[in-house]
Amino acid sequence: MSKDVFERGLAIRKDVLGKEFVEKSFAAADDFNRPMQELVTEYCWGAVWGREDLPRKTRSMLNLAMLSCLNRPHELKTHIKGALSNGVSREEIREIFLQVAIYAGVPAGVDSFRIGRETFAELDAAKA
Amino acid sequence: MSKDVFERGLAIRKDVLGKEFVEKSFAAADDFNRPMQELVTEYCWGAVWGREDLPRKTRSMLNLAMLSCLNRPHELKTHIKGALSNGVSREEIREIFLQVAIYAGVPAGVDSFRIGRETFAELDAAKA
Amino acid sequence: MSKDVFERGLAIRKDVLGKEFVEKSFAAADDFNRPMQELVTEYCWGAVWGREDLPRKTRSMLNLAMLSCLNRPHELKTHIKGALSNGVSREEIREIFLQVAIYAGVPAGVDSFRIGRETFAELDAAKA
Amino acid sequence: MSKDVFERGLAIRKDVLGKEFVEKSFAAADDFNRPMQELVTEYCWGAVWGREDLPRKTRSMLNLAMLSCLNRPHELKTHIKGALSNGVSREEIREIFLQVAIYAGVPAGVDSFRIGRETFAELDAAKA
Amino acid sequence: MSKDVFERGLAIRKDVLGKEFVEKSFAAADDFNRPMQELVTEYCWGAVWGREDLPRKTRSMLNLAMLSCLNRPHELKTHIKGALSNGVSREEIREIFLQVAIYAGVPAGVDSFRIGRETFAELDAAKA
Amino acid sequence: MSKDVFERGLAIRKDVLGKEFVEKSFAAADDFNRPMQELVTEYCWGAVWGREDLPRKTRSMLNLAMLSCLNRPHELKTHIKGALSNGVSREEIREIFLQVAIYAGVPAGVDSFRIGRETFAELDAAKA
Repeated sequence: MSKDVFERGLAIRKDVLGKEFVEKSFAAADDFNRPMQELVTEYCWGAVWGREDLPRKTRSMLNLAMLSCLNRPHELKTHIKGALSNGVSREEIREIFLQVAIYAGVPAGVDSFRIGRETFAELDAAKA
Repeated sequence: MSKDVFERGLAIRKDVLGKEFVEKSFAAADDFNRPMQELVTEYCWGAVWGREDLPRKTRSMLNLAMLSCLNRPHELKTHIKGALSNGVSREEIREIFLQVAIYAGVPAGVDSFRIGRETFAELDAAKA
Repeated sequence: MSKDVFERGLAIRKDVLGKEFVEKSFAAADDFNRPMQELVTEYCWGAVWGREDLPRKTRSMLNLAMLSCLNRPHELKTHIKGALSNGVSREEIREIFLQVAIYAGVPAGVDSFRIGRETFAELDAAKA
Repeated sequence: MSKDVFERGLAIRKDVLGKEFVEKSFAAADDFNRPMQELVTEYCWGAVWGREDLPRKTRSMLNLAMLSCLNRPHELKTHIKGALSNGVSREEIREIFLQVAIYAGVPAGVDSFRIGRETFAELDAAKA
Repeated sequence: MSKDVFERGLAIRKDVLGKEFVEKSFAAADDFNRPMQELVTEYCWGAVWGREDLPRKTRSMLNLAMLSCLNRPHELKTHIKGALSNGVSREEIREIFLQVAIYAGVPAGVDSFRIGRETFAELDAAKA
Repeated sequence: MSKDVFERGLAIRKDVLGKEFVEKSFAAADDFNRPMQELVTEYCWGAVWGREDLPRKTRSMLNLAMLSCLNRPHELKTHIKGALSNGVSREEIREIFLQVAIYAGVPAGVDSFRIGRETFAELDAAKA
C-alpha cells in the first residue's frame, strides 16, 4: 500500500461522502471487509479521484450515470449525496437521469428517479 | 411525431455526429429501420439532447461513461468522435475511461481504451 | 412535445397500468421527475406502445422477458400487473420465466418467479 | 440424460435453426464442447422449447428481445433466422427492436437493427 | 424428465443448500413455480453440479463470483451459505469479492461485501 | 504509486500473461493509455493478484467465469491463455463454461465455448 495515495484518497473520500460516514465505515470494519475498505480508499479515491484532470463535480456526474447503468441502488444513493456536496444541482441530476432513460432504457431511468426522490426526501427530512 | 422536436433533434445530431454521417444514415434507411432513425432523432436528439440544462460537452462525457458500462463498442466509437466535436479533449476521455475501469471493472476500462485508441488512429489517418 | 402522441400514450398507459396508478404518478410528480413522467408517457407509451404492428398482449410478454434480463424488479412487478390486464395468463407468465431461466440464467429466472408469486399474492389479497 | 427429451429437443432445434446448421454443429463438436451441445439440445430445446404452453412464434419473439438485452450478437443473428422460420415477419422484428430501444436503451436498439439488416442481407443474397 | 438426473440433483441440492431449505421450496411450490423447481433441480443441480470434473468447493467459488457480476443478491446470499457448507472459508470469500471489485467494478464489490456481512451475521445469530 | 506493489504486479502479470505480451503492452503505450497500464499493473495484478490467500489457479478460474458473465471476449481470450499457464486444464475450462451456461444463460455459455475453441486453435497452430 502506498501511504501517500491512501491518505489523499481518505481525505477526498471524506470531502465527498462526509467525514462521519467514512469514519463509521472504518470503525465498523472487521477482518472480512477491512481489506476492501483499504483498497477502495487507495485505488478508487486516491489513485483515480485524486487525479486532477477532471473536476470532482464532473466525476460525480459520471458516477450517477454509471451507477444507474450498473444497477447499483445502494451506491447510487451514496453518490447522489456526494454529487450534491460536489456542487451538482438537483436540476442537473434530473438531466443526467433523463439521459440515462434514453441510453440505458426507461426502466433504468425510472429506478434512478425513484432513488433520487427518496434521497432528496431523506436529506430534506434531516434538515427539517 | 412533433415536427419541431424532430427538426431540433436532426440539427443537433448533425452538429454532434457530422452532417454527412447523419444524411447517409437516413439515405440508407429502408422500411425496416426508418422508424428507428426517426425515433432516435426525435426523442434521443430532440427531446433529451435538445434540453438546455446540461451543456453538450457534459452530455458527451456522460455518454462515453454509459456506453462503456453498457458494453456497446459501435456506439462508443461514434460517440468518441461526437465528444471530440463537442470539445472533450483526449485527456478528458482518458480520465473518463480510468473512472470506468474503477466503477465498471478493469475489463470494461481495457475495452474502452482499446476502442479509444482505434478511433484516434482512424481520425489521425483521415487527417494525414 | 407532440400533444397527440402524448394523449395517445396517456390513454394506453392508463389502459395497461390502471387509471388510478397513472393519475397518482402525475399528481405526485414535482419539478424533479415531471419531465420524466412526460417523456415516458409520450415516448414509451405513445410513440412505441401506440404503434399498431404488435398486439398489446405481445408487447407485455416481451416486457416481462426484457425486465427479467435487465434485472429491474420494481418495473417487473408493474408490468406483470399490466400483462394480466392485457390478457397474458399466469400460465403464459410461467412459460416466459422458464425461458428467461434458460437464456438469462437460472438466477434471473428464480428472481422473476419470486416476484411473480409476490405480485399474484398481492392481487389475490386485494380481491379477497 | 433423458433420451426422449434430447430427441424432442433435437427435432425442434432442427426445425427452428435448420437441419444442416444443427448437424454441422454436432459433427464439428469435440470433447471440449460436445457436453455443451448436448446440454443445450436437451434442456434449452427439449425441456423448455418442447413445452407446449407457448407457440414457437412467441418463443422466437421473446428470444429476439432477450438476446438484444443480453448483448449477444452471434446468438441474435442465429435467432433472427430462427424467428423468420417460425413465422415472425420482418415488420414484427422491427417492432420488437423498437421496443428494445425503449426498454434496454437506444444503443441496444441501434445494435439490434444493424444486426437485423446484416442478417436480412445475408438471407437475400443466399436466395438471389 | 430424467428421473436419475433429477434424483442426483435433488441430493446435491440438499447437500449444498440444506435439506430443510430444499424441502420447504418444494412443499411451497404451486402450479406456477413447480416446473421451475423441477427444471432447476434437474438441469442446474443434476446435469451440471452433478458432473464430477470440478470439486463442489470450486463450483461454489465460481458461483459467488458470477452472482456478484450478475447482480443477484437473493441468490448470492443462498450461495454464500452453500459455499460455507462446501468448505469455502470466510477468508476465501473475502478474496473472491476483492477480485470481483477489480473485475466487475467497485460497486459490485461493495454490494457483495455488504451481503456477505449480513449473511455471516444471520448465521452467527442463528448459532448463538 | 507504490513502487513495491507495482513491481510485484508487473512480475505476476508477466508470469500469467507472458513476458512478451506485457512488455509489448508497455512499449506500445502512449500518453493516452499509459496511466491505465500502470493502474492495472499496480492494483489488479499487484494489490489483488498479489494477495496470497487464493492460489493463482483459482483466481484464473474465477476470471473465466466473471469475464463470461461480463461479456468481454477480448479479455476472456487473454485470460484463457493465462488460465492454461496457471495450470487450469481444458477439461476444467469446459466445466467452468458449462456452469456459466446455467448461471449466466445459454447464450453466454455458447459465446464462451466459441471463444475457447478459437483460443485453443490459435495456441495449437502456434505450437505446430
